[in-house]
Amino acid sequence: MADKKKLVEDITSMEVDFARWYTDVVKKAELVDYSSVRGCMILRPYGYAIWEHIQGIADGLFKATGHENVYMPLLIPESLLQKEKDHVAGFAPEVAWVTQGGGEELTERLCIRPTSETLFCEHFAHIIKSYRDLPKKYNQWCNVLRWEKTTRPFLRTMEFLWQEGHTMHETEEEAVEETLRMLNVYADICENYLAIPVVKGRKTEKEKFAGAESTYTIEAMMHDGKSLQSGTSHFFGDGFARAFDIQYTDRNNTLQYPFQTSWGITTRLIGAIIMTHGDDNGLQLPPAVAPVQVMVVPIAQHKEGVADKAVQVLAEIKGFCRADIDLSDNSPGWKFAQYEMKGVPLRLELGPKDIEQNQCVLVRRDTGEKVTVPLDGLEKAIGELLRDIHDTLYRRALKNREDHTYTAHTFEEVLAIAGDESKSGFINTMWCEDPACEAKMKEEAGLTSRCMPLEQEHLDDRCVCCGRPAKSMIVWGKAY
Amino acid sequence: MADKKKLVEDITSMEVDFARWYTDVVKKAELVDYSSVRGCMILRPYGYAIWEHIQGIADGLFKATGHENVYMPLLIPESLLQKEKDHVAGFAPEVAWVTQGGGEELTERLCIRPTSETLFCEHFAHIIKSYRDLPKKYNQWCNVLRWEKTTRPFLRTMEFLWQEGHTMHETEEEAVEETLRMLNVYADICENYLAIPVVKGRKTEKEKFAGAESTYTIEAMMHDGKSLQSGTSHFFGDGFARAFDIQYTDRNNTLQYPFQTSWGITTRLIGAIIMTHGDDNGLQLPPAVAPVQVMVVPIAQHKEGVADKAVQVLAEIKGFCRADIDLSDNSPGWKFAQYEMKGVPLRLELGPKDIEQNQCVLVRRDTGEKVTVPLDGLEKAIGELLRDIHDTLYRRALKNREDHTYTAHTFEEVLAIAGDESKSGFINTMWCEDPACEAKMKEEAGLTSRCMPLEQEHLDDRCVCCGRPAKSMIVWGKAY
Repeated sequence: MADKKKLVEDITSMEVDFARWYTDVVKKAELVDYSSVRGCMILRPYGYAIWEHIQGIADGLFKATGHENVYMPLLIPESLLQKEKDHVAGFAPEVAWVTQGGGEELTERLCIRPTSETLFCEHFAHIIKSYRDLPKKYNQWCNVLRWEKTTRPFLRTMEFLWQEGHTMHETEEEAVEETLRMLNVYADICENYLAIPVVKGRKTEKEKFAGAESTYTIEAMMHDGKSLQSGTSHFFGDGFARAFDIQYTDRNNTLQYPFQTSWGITTRLIGAIIMTHGDDNGLQLPPAVAPVQVMVVPIAQHKEGVADKAVQVLAEIKGFCRADIDLSDNSPGWKFAQYEMKGVPLRLELGPKDIEQNQCVLVRRDTGEKVTVPLDGLEKAIGELLRDIHDTLYRRALKNREDHTYTAHTFEEVLAIAGDESKSGFINTMWCEDPACEAKMKEEAGLTSRCMPLEQEHLDDRCVCCGRPAKSMIVWGKAY
Repeated sequence: MADKKKLVEDITSMEVDFARWYTDVVKKAELVDYSSVRGCMILRPYGYAIWEHIQGIADGLFKATGHENVYMPLLIPESLLQKEKDHVAGFAPEVAWVTQGGGEELTERLCIRPTSETLFCEHFAHIIKSYRDLPKKYNQWCNVLRWEKTTRPFLRTMEFLWQEGHTMHETEEEAVEETLRMLNVYADICENYLAIPVVKGRKTEKEKFAGAESTYTIEAMMHDGKSLQSGTSHFFGDGFARAFDIQYTDRNNTLQYPFQTSWGITTRLIGAIIMTHGDDNGLQLPPAVAPVQVMVVPIAQHKEGVADKAVQVLAEIKGFCRADIDLSDNSPGWKFAQYEMKGVPLRLELGPKDIEQNQCVLVRRDTGEKVTVPLDGLEKAIGELLRDIHDTLYRRALKNREDHTYTAHTFEEVLAIAGDESKSGFINTMWCEDPACEAKMKEEAGLTSRCMPLEQEHLDDRCVCCGRPAKSMIVWGKAY
């Protein structure tokens, strides 16, 4: 098929250059466009539709766990940003400042929110007076901006879309529970909707969020073995509450500081989908977030009755899945390649002979398998195939992760694995929890700590770096 | 009921001070909170939920008319904003400028989008090459910022949430058709979902959007007779296309400029809902966008079985409407007043005697009417009542508009009506279309042109201002 060959030739092979493959897919599948605004991306209809599906799933899960949506201002006065010292130290270097408005110089600079803890805290101070006002479990969907030097579509952009949950609780225990609940919601989204297996764990002191007491993360492994931090959930203790003077009268009528969490996922998840499931033919979208789950491609559509019947089949299957049809003049071969490249999970082929026999052919994007299905059995067949495609994508990604997860007991082993490009992946070791060892792993092996998994294993008694008694198991990797 | 009296006392009467009534309702019903960011508001859960319902309705109608969602950058380089001269002249005075980022002074200022025509045009220039690429029918949900001197929640805030549609078409005719199609979609949203009657019309040259060839508007009358511009739809001709060099090869293989539209509605619609339907007891929400359509209030809830039964009834009605329950220790009287103030369309009361007789009482927010309904007939009864509440709200608003719409044939009549506070409303007249007359109406009668209605009537032969031959019928008013 010449058409297909041509299309695929436009995409660099993953094996040749993974970074170029990524950029080619992102552009070719029309997920994004660049603009004259440095480091910002335009989300095109196909890319934005994936985000809408992620939003719909996440928003449903947030509401089901008792969260309410709100909207806070885009701009943060400098004095407000400075209220929590660790937080401002972490974010001040990477914000954009508004210094002029309405034709005048401002007396105080306003930063574009890099995250909204400070705004939420100011609001919480207004509305939390009594234990009866707790918990407050808020979420906001919005854009944020961080001044990044090097950017890549979805993975790291100056402006990105995300949700940020911000909650306040009576007790430390309840806040920690919320932090982990939302980490599990994120893992649920990744594994059961995006078909991306994740390792849940805690970040080291060095890697935790500016102002947090502890940060939890879900880490996914991309096709090239690199790690992608895919969502984080933070426990703040009462640090922000003290800085912002948020106090409530407890059940014993004494003043207390509440305990806080925040958590976020971003459009970065689209990058995770691309790099987890994509192949040399282009995107592969998990059915739960695919804008089009089934693409109808008529065969010999100029023949009488074919286009009509295809449109009729489309109308029927739209009742139970997201479907579309391509009635353009392009050849079937071009269409096959096009929708493979766009990652549509299933293709439905319908030609004159199929119509004669009241059947059609369903072709899977993940395996290329074809099955002939009677037209009156499509709801069951498509439902089962979409579920199976999800499972297959998940299993493949899990196998990739398992195949590229190594255990090291000595620093020499670490260096040997990290230095072998064919072994790009996770390296599990024990660690003494000394930041000096973390720094050494970075400097000498080029590895950053990904997380201390919630499911700890005892791999060894000693720290892989210094040989002193180990405190925890930790995952290392090279990260996006 | 002492509780109710107290609650209502917190809200200034509309007749005493409409502006204070508005602010009281907005705060009391917990729609917004203020922050230290001047002119920006915090949308609290109840206020944001109304916006989510408006978004859901509008987004469905946009998609049903073939539009796709995209997302453009927040920031616009100064050079890009300046490409269309009328546009920059209109917006430059009211933008916020980012001049510092990542710790450095920028070489070019970036403005926070006040609207995104320039970004869409830059993108259109990339992707529109052939007539096959047309039409492009895009929409984006986002925040925008305009540097306003005086602000009021929902009605005029520096930052607000909105949607902006941007479309490109082969022919002028098709673009004009789109402009009017979306105006009709906006009127549909207002009338059939928000229960707000609107006048559809064209803005004068003076009032049209910066850079547009013509601007269409829907104008609603608030309870106090003032006008609220509730949505606008613009036809751009090919002005932006020429400024941004967007050209396509047409069906005859010659280069052409496409024709453009844009259209938007904002969180201002929530202000319209408040000021159209609210009363001295607080909010009244149209059922289609009420976060809670039915509030269950148990009576004598301490008595055995009452709370259980109420929770059971709640679970049942949640199958067909948005419902909630108040099981707090507050008195039923407090709860009645509370949910009236929050504008919940229906209250469901359930006490021991009701349970005995397998019935409950439904109380309408709009009329106060009570009906006793068997528990097994709730789906039908609630459905009918919600529809009737919508109709009643709409009819009342329409009557208010009709009662406060005047016709003037001479300038003396205009002055007499405009000078009589009891006659605050719309004044319909004929007009010669000379901007000098429009300016005189503003200066001498304090009236601005609202629109030239699409449904024109011939009221007179002469312009109400100058007596020269009239060209069109026009609506005047005082506006928010």
